[in-house]
Amino acid sequence: MTRFQPIYDIAELCARKGVTQAVLCPGSRCAPLTLAFARHPAIATRTFGDERSAGFVALGIAQQKKAPAILVCTSGSAAYNFAPAVAEAWFSETPLVVFTADRPAEWVGQHDGQTIHQPGIFGRHVKQSFQLPADYQHPDSAWAVNRIVNEAINLSFQEPKGPVHINAPFREPLYPAAGEAIAFSAEVRVMDEFSSTFTLTEEQKKVIAAEWSQYHNILIVTGQQEYDRLLTDTLRNFFKQHNVPIVGDITSNLHGVEKLVRHADTFLGHATEDVRKTLQPDLLITFGKSVLSKQLKLYLRKHAPGAHWHLQPSGMAADAFQSITRVFNANPVDFFLYLSALPQGATFETQKQNNFNKFWEVEERRALRTLEDFFPQPEFGELELVREVLQALPEGSNLHLANSMSVRYANFIGLTAKQKSIQVFANRGTSGIDGCTSTAAGHTLSNDRPNVLITGDMAFFYDRNAFWHNYPLPNLRVVLLNNHGGVIFKMIDGPGDLPETAEYFVTRQKLNARKLCEEHGISHLALDSKRKLRNLLKDFLEFDGQTKILELETDTSVNKNLYEHLKHQLKKSYEL
Amino acid sequence: MTRFQPIYDIAELCARKGVTQAVLCPGSRCAPLTLAFARHPAIATRTFGDERSAGFVALGIAQQKKAPAILVCTSGSAAYNFAPAVAEAWFSETPLVVFTADRPAEWVGQHDGQTIHQPGIFGRHVKQSFQLPADYQHPDSAWAVNRIVNEAINLSFQEPKGPVHINAPFREPLYPAAGEAIAFSAEVRVMDEFSSTFTLTEEQKKVIAAEWSQYHNILIVTGQQEYDRLLTDTLRNFFKQHNVPIVGDITSNLHGVEKLVRHADTFLGHATEDVRKTLQPDLLITFGKSVLSKQLKLYLRKHAPGAHWHLQPSGMAADAFQSITRVFNANPVDFFLYLSALPQGATFETQKQNNFNKFWEVEERRALRTLEDFFPQPEFGELELVREVLQALPEGSNLHLANSMSVRYANFIGLTAKQKSIQVFANRGTSGIDGCTSTAAGHTLSNDRPNVLITGDMAFFYDRNAFWHNYPLPNLRVVLLNNHGGVIFKMIDGPGDLPETAEYFVTRQKLNARKLCEEHGISHLALDSKRKLRNLLKDFLEFDGQTKILELETDTSVNKNLYEHLKHQLKKSYEL
Repeated sequence: MTRFQPIYDIAELCARKGVTQAVLCPGSRCAPLTLAFARHPAIATRTFGDERSAGFVALGIAQQKKAPAILVCTSGSAAYNFAPAVAEAWFSETPLVVFTADRPAEWVGQHDGQTIHQPGIFGRHVKQSFQLPADYQHPDSAWAVNRIVNEAINLSFQEPKGPVHINAPFREPLYPAAGEAIAFSAEVRVMDEFSSTFTLTEEQKKVIAAEWSQYHNILIVTGQQEYDRLLTDTLRNFFKQHNVPIVGDITSNLHGVEKLVRHADTFLGHATEDVRKTLQPDLLITFGKSVLSKQLKLYLRKHAPGAHWHLQPSGMAADAFQSITRVFNANPVDFFLYLSALPQGATFETQKQNNFNKFWEVEERRALRTLEDFFPQPEFGELELVREVLQALPEGSNLHLANSMSVRYANFIGLTAKQKSIQVFANRGTSGIDGCTSTAAGHTLSNDRPNVLITGDMAFFYDRNAFWHNYPLPNLRVVLLNNHGGVIFKMIDGPGDLPETAEYFVTRQKLNARKLCEEHGISHLALDSKRKLRNLLKDFLEFDGQTKILELETDTSVNKNLYEHLKHQLKKSYEL
Repeated sequence: MTRFQPIYDIAELCARKGVTQAVLCPGSRCAPLTLAFARHPAIATRTFGDERSAGFVALGIAQQKKAPAILVCTSGSAAYNFAPAVAEAWFSETPLVVFTADRPAEWVGQHDGQTIHQPGIFGRHVKQSFQLPADYQHPDSAWAVNRIVNEAINLSFQEPKGPVHINAPFREPLYPAAGEAIAFSAEVRVMDEFSSTFTLTEEQKKVIAAEWSQYHNILIVTGQQEYDRLLTDTLRNFFKQHNVPIVGDITSNLHGVEKLVRHADTFLGHATEDVRKTLQPDLLITFGKSVLSKQLKLYLRKHAPGAHWHLQPSGMAADAFQSITRVFNANPVDFFLYLSALPQGATFETQKQNNFNKFWEVEERRALRTLEDFFPQPEFGELELVREVLQALPEGSNLHLANSMSVRYANFIGLTAKQKSIQVFANRGTSGIDGCTSTAAGHTLSNDRPNVLITGDMAFFYDRNAFWHNYPLPNLRVVLLNNHGGVIFKMIDGPGDLPETAEYFVTRQKLNARKLCEEHGISHLALDSKRKLRNLLKDFLEFDGQTKILELETDTSVNKNLYEHLKHQLKKSYEL
């Protein structure tokens, strides 16, 4: 039994609780934790030099494994480099157990190296910030370490899931003496927690049954959520039964639902006010996290539904459309299964709902037709490349979409119902560009599927340390839309014509990915002519053990012009 | 008068208060601030894509200009990417005025993009976190904006200086309408603040005069501080008068004091206990921020002085040696000027102090001699390169020392009194590796002196986005000690022989700087043979408008062996 036994046993506890993926960052202060995780046979450990990237790698691993990932760093500003990923984990509801090693509290502020104010450092972006004791002589301290880590892991996995922080002060010596073995205790207390599944209560059912039949212009809008086959099937059946239009961005992962309205963002911004009025629901049902489509948000805030039911298994409901009138603490599958089983109303009622659904179908078809007529364009831009890539995605791919234009491009195009084997990921918790590649790397390290990331150059070079480690990423493919700056600032209204735009908003940047690829042994496929596209895409999507980057360098103005042209076509489609 | 007039006038206020250096990061939410600063004729603005790097650039600018630098970012996780630099600013007492644009408070947590919990986001690492109003209809709001920014700037520059945070929520539209001009109000209220200079009070003088003569083994230990010619001169004169040994790391910037004890870290770890006893002070006088030398800290904690006076103009005193008995709220120049003017004690008293000083002089000379005898070594390692670089530094250089081994190597060698025109900088507030290059870049952007950074490969590649911008750095020279990992973990006791060391502590990394130099148009000078050293150093230190990186790639074990060998020689020097 060594001094650090309660700390070493954290690894044993994590293993027993199924928390087996650890991302470690170098440092001395964290040595007791590093050694514990590295030596534990059931824990997979990886190490990354840049903590900012490491945080997002852990985020990707946790999302992929659907289990809390462990993050460990040394004392000092290392912890703050985790913060962008911790904030994303908080808003994207991803379970992370973040250990920050620290000096004992009495040495904080005493001019010792790598010592900052770590307790509570992640503010409101963790579910709880725990503080371990620095000394373990008293048996209560060992009990506290075990209890805290049990609680922290349980809490991270409770709905809504999220990150927890454990600040761990360690006294020197930090390393075991020469020849001193590290063993894990045979008896480590595990506090199991059985989670609720948030099934519908009898009371909820009564309310739904009583009120449901009052509404005949019912609309469902889904926010971001992970792929869930059961939910896809449930919604498909529900639609067949009740003809309720279901609107979902690409990040809603409901593209497997044939009748999904995928292009609301595209048509709502251009539809005439007459059309927009026909689309207004009397009951809006929502679930999931954030909605990508700005036009949809603006539309619903202006054309408020008569009633708005939001499904929120637990935690606070975000009132993104400013219209929630009722929150059900229930999981969506359960909710829609129950609705599917409800009898249909009178004929005139189903007819009204069918008509309402038709209105949405018409607009969806109009947008789709305009898009299909629009391509191919004589000038090859980013949007067309995204379209080609989405159409060519291998079966069973993970599609990773970076902020900020990439995810919007992809949503503009959408995935088809035939592509139901594809899962979509995007850091839409904070919508930052700071860790999109690292998150995709974390996913890639944790699955054998093809992983395709679509990213712009600002997000890509911001997070280039996603490649600065020793773990091969043979299943990662990066589509790099390089317009040498933040193209979004040319697209949105406002900065477009200001003299400051080039320098302060677009932020011209000169790099392309060639040198980066040479540095890291990545195949670089430069798309310098549209004629090469099909061949390059074929090469690119061949999974032969090599990381590949497909780069299209374009001028911002090309993309802006194409985008303007497309907007014009969409507008024209309402003038016929 | 536009809606954002109170915000635009922030730029005017900053200009009138002499806060004229702004580092801007791209984003839409911050547009009102970006436009105000970019359009103000008296404010110098620069823009950087990676907020982590931008934060450290601003830190370097503030240090160089000795005035608060402005930092601006958009809403969301951008703010968290500033946090490592903000923490460094807090502990290094560097004035920063950090503006984080935000959505109005009512939209936080409502699934809007780039929206996190920003109020108070920097925790205890800012002197104050202010919140601006979101609406300015009421005249009190405009008054509040003006008052808050006045207060924030004043506070950042009060001793101890430091960062302040202003969270600024903005409502859409964020951009001026087409053709709408931005003007600055003619009347902008400025709240001047006249700072105290912390001169010695009569009461302090009485205490010093009464007690000073009781001590005859007086020792001065100085922590990190910026170069101050007046302080150097004052201490030089003080020494001549009283023969009090003055111990200072390279980061104390007191190398201009001829009799400075520069190698305490080197000899205290190897001196015999008999010698160490002779060095124990009866009065220790300290000032400045953190002490680099771990051996000095350990020594003084073990051999506690009878009394310990710490000079702390304001704020809390760090008790780094666990021995403070009296704090003087006084500036060191004033304190030592007063002491210099005090009459010397009786002959036997001055003789005792002279003897005590001799003990320290002998050890300093012994360490220096051992070092001089040690070099050159047949095998060329990092320490010898650092020695050659330090000796070759051009007059009037800024020397930037990265964490973690680089600053220790440089302290091991030290600067001579003849090099008094050299100023030394290092991020020893948090001692992080996360922004050393960016800080040096910030300095380089703000002065015309030669700027030489010595860094290891972990710090260098961690912060490689220090070069990802459009501002030339013709006066920057980087000495890159590339041992492909964290060599410090081979040097310190503990991890040396653990099987995990290579992967989890040293963190092998494969890159060298060649591709990075190609990417950014930097001259790459590879030091692949010691014979080339003199010629390469000459090229390297020629300031011809080109950024240059001098890279030495070595194996960790070479450096470890040389370090062990030197330690052996130091130990042997006590066996004669």
